[in-house]
Amino acid sequence: MDYDVKDDGMTEQTLPSTGREWHLAARPQGWPVPEDFALVEAPVQAPAAGQILVRNEYLSVDPYMRGRMNDVKSYVPPFRLGAVMDGGAVGRVVASAAEGFAVGDAVLHGLGWREYATLDADKAIRVDDALPLQSYLGVLGMTGLTAYAGLLEVGGFQPGEAVFVSGAAGAVGSMVGQIAKLRGASLVVGSAGSDEKVRMLTEELGFDVAFNYRNGPVAEQLAKAAPEGIDVYFDNVGGEHLEAAIGALRLKGRAVLCGAIAQYNDTTPPVGPRNLALAIGKRLRLEGMLVGDHYALQPAFVAEVGGWMAEGRLVFEETVVEGFDRTVEAFLGLLRGANTGKMLVRVDG
Amino acid sequence: MDYDVKDDGMTEQTLPSTGREWHLAARPQGWPVPEDFALVEAPVQAPAAGQILVRNEYLSVDPYMRGRMNDVKSYVPPFRLGAVMDGGAVGRVVASAAEGFAVGDAVLHGLGWREYATLDADKAIRVDDALPLQSYLGVLGMTGLTAYAGLLEVGGFQPGEAVFVSGAAGAVGSMVGQIAKLRGASLVVGSAGSDEKVRMLTEELGFDVAFNYRNGPVAEQLAKAAPEGIDVYFDNVGGEHLEAAIGALRLKGRAVLCGAIAQYNDTTPPVGPRNLALAIGKRLRLEGMLVGDHYALQPAFVAEVGGWMAEGRLVFEETVVEGFDRTVEAFLGLLRGANTGKMLVRVDG
Repeated sequence: MDYDVKDDGMTEQTLPSTGREWHLAARPQGWPVPEDFALVEAPVQAPAAGQILVRNEYLSVDPYMRGRMNDVKSYVPPFRLGAVMDGGAVGRVVASAAEGFAVGDAVLHGLGWREYATLDADKAIRVDDALPLQSYLGVLGMTGLTAYAGLLEVGGFQPGEAVFVSGAAGAVGSMVGQIAKLRGASLVVGSAGSDEKVRMLTEELGFDVAFNYRNGPVAEQLAKAAPEGIDVYFDNVGGEHLEAAIGALRLKGRAVLCGAIAQYNDTTPPVGPRNLALAIGKRLRLEGMLVGDHYALQPAFVAEVGGWMAEGRLVFEETVVEGFDRTVEAFLGLLRGANTGKMLVRVDG
Repeated sequence: MDYDVKDDGMTEQTLPSTGREWHLAARPQGWPVPEDFALVEAPVQAPAAGQILVRNEYLSVDPYMRGRMNDVKSYVPPFRLGAVMDGGAVGRVVASAAEGFAVGDAVLHGLGWREYATLDADKAIRVDDALPLQSYLGVLGMTGLTAYAGLLEVGGFQPGEAVFVSGAAGAVGSMVGQIAKLRGASLVVGSAGSDEKVRMLTEELGFDVAFNYRNGPVAEQLAKAAPEGIDVYFDNVGGEHLEAAIGALRLKGRAVLCGAIAQYNDTTPPVGPRNLALAIGKRLRLEGMLVGDHYALQPAFVAEVGGWMAEGRLVFEETVVEGFDRTVEAFLGLLRGANTGKMLVRVDG
């Protein structure tokens, strides 16, 4: 059933009765395959009192979603079989039954992987559309805050220190390296999985040194890049990188454990860092983080990072996959490192 | 050449011209063997101005000494081949050319593994001999401070939390468990390598639960001992224990990395904790420690732990090997877990 919504006298829109959604069809063993997902046409719910209906414009695909595809207890509950894969999204209100939200308002919310989302208005955050909407899924959103809080609050980074970031061409990693430089790091080293990304890190993002981890043992390449060692390691990948970083960390060094994308699809347990006992003599600190613990930092983050954005001092890369039907392709590409910077899906592409 | 020393008119002693010392004869590959050490008769040096000559009464043998037998850069320099294996010792001054030190004074110093030590007086600490001298090598010394600082300062232990200690029957471990109980832990679990030690932990030291890690997988035994998980893990052994603890640690749990005795004699790298990525979602902190960073805590430590000692609330176990010629035997026994509590050598035994 189609229905019309009067938009404060400005326009009149016809809303579709159905919209497309991506469902979890099967729990993957190891690497997910397209057959683990199902594209479903589902009824669009009219907003009840206090709700809004949003047409999504950009969807976020993120590494943590791989973990939610498994049926295991974790820090976020698993996706349910046969249900939509939630995720961060930005879009515009197309129907509102909530005070304070008008048709046309740009909002950030958590009901991604679908074209239309009906949700309680208090679960949506109105955002300023003077900036590109998709930046709220990246540099000014959870991605940016993860980098900011991880480097500064968890990693305790101080000006003059040397920083190493893995997954450096990714959404979080590219922010970590730039924030470190802008905050006065003596050396910023990044690793990535292609020569093209490596070139981008040094030529566009201001990393001092970068290397392609596929070109040789990480420990050897890191020793060449930072012969005097590092003070903070921001870990997005786990595995061999973490072991190399433990070797390179100096006295009282810190490792921020933020992601382990290298092993998300392993069906057997990965190899742990065999040199962890070095942490004793060097008094290293390894600490896991989730951005949700650091929301108190949000105002400082927006002020500082927003300032750098306004001054044009921050490069934020995006890889935008065009078209809602390519969401799974975007997600699988992300897991294989096909993105540079934040990986997004443009719904209408 | 024998020489006499006038002891402020009190006694007159004849000092020997030579004393025995244990030297490092060869760098071990894997487990040390008796042939890696040499018992050497060496001249006793008369104290120069500002020095004292000490007859050692008790020697400390410690796990960290195994690391110093390797020729690798570490937090303490390696022992030199053909030189004495230094280590903690307590004894009495038998000749003094230093102000403030008289013959008969009890002192703590760092020139162990020998019968007689000649050293600058400012490298010796005079100790109160109302307490057994050997306690300065254990409960009131670096051993006790390691436990105290590791649990409270590095581990950030709070009353009401659950604690797991490996190597719990060892010198540091047995103190950690007792301090945790005395400071209000909700649960203290210890692991050790024999049923006799396990019995001692619960029946004499006040641990709530203890298990023999040789009796089954550590993770399974720990899950049984602490079904609701733990908040602080004090790691003396590394390896399988650390992996089990990472699994059992609750949100925001801490692992104090103090020792890795399980792997000191490995010639191949040990297996690292394969589940380290759990630290992300649980926001765990793993932190290495050396007691030398925590000397500022010494006054608080002596006041609190000395108080518990005086009240008889602290059990401190010692394993005393009698006789200087058995020092190597004591050390090798320590590495194999033959001790309960602090392992000591009584020089005159």
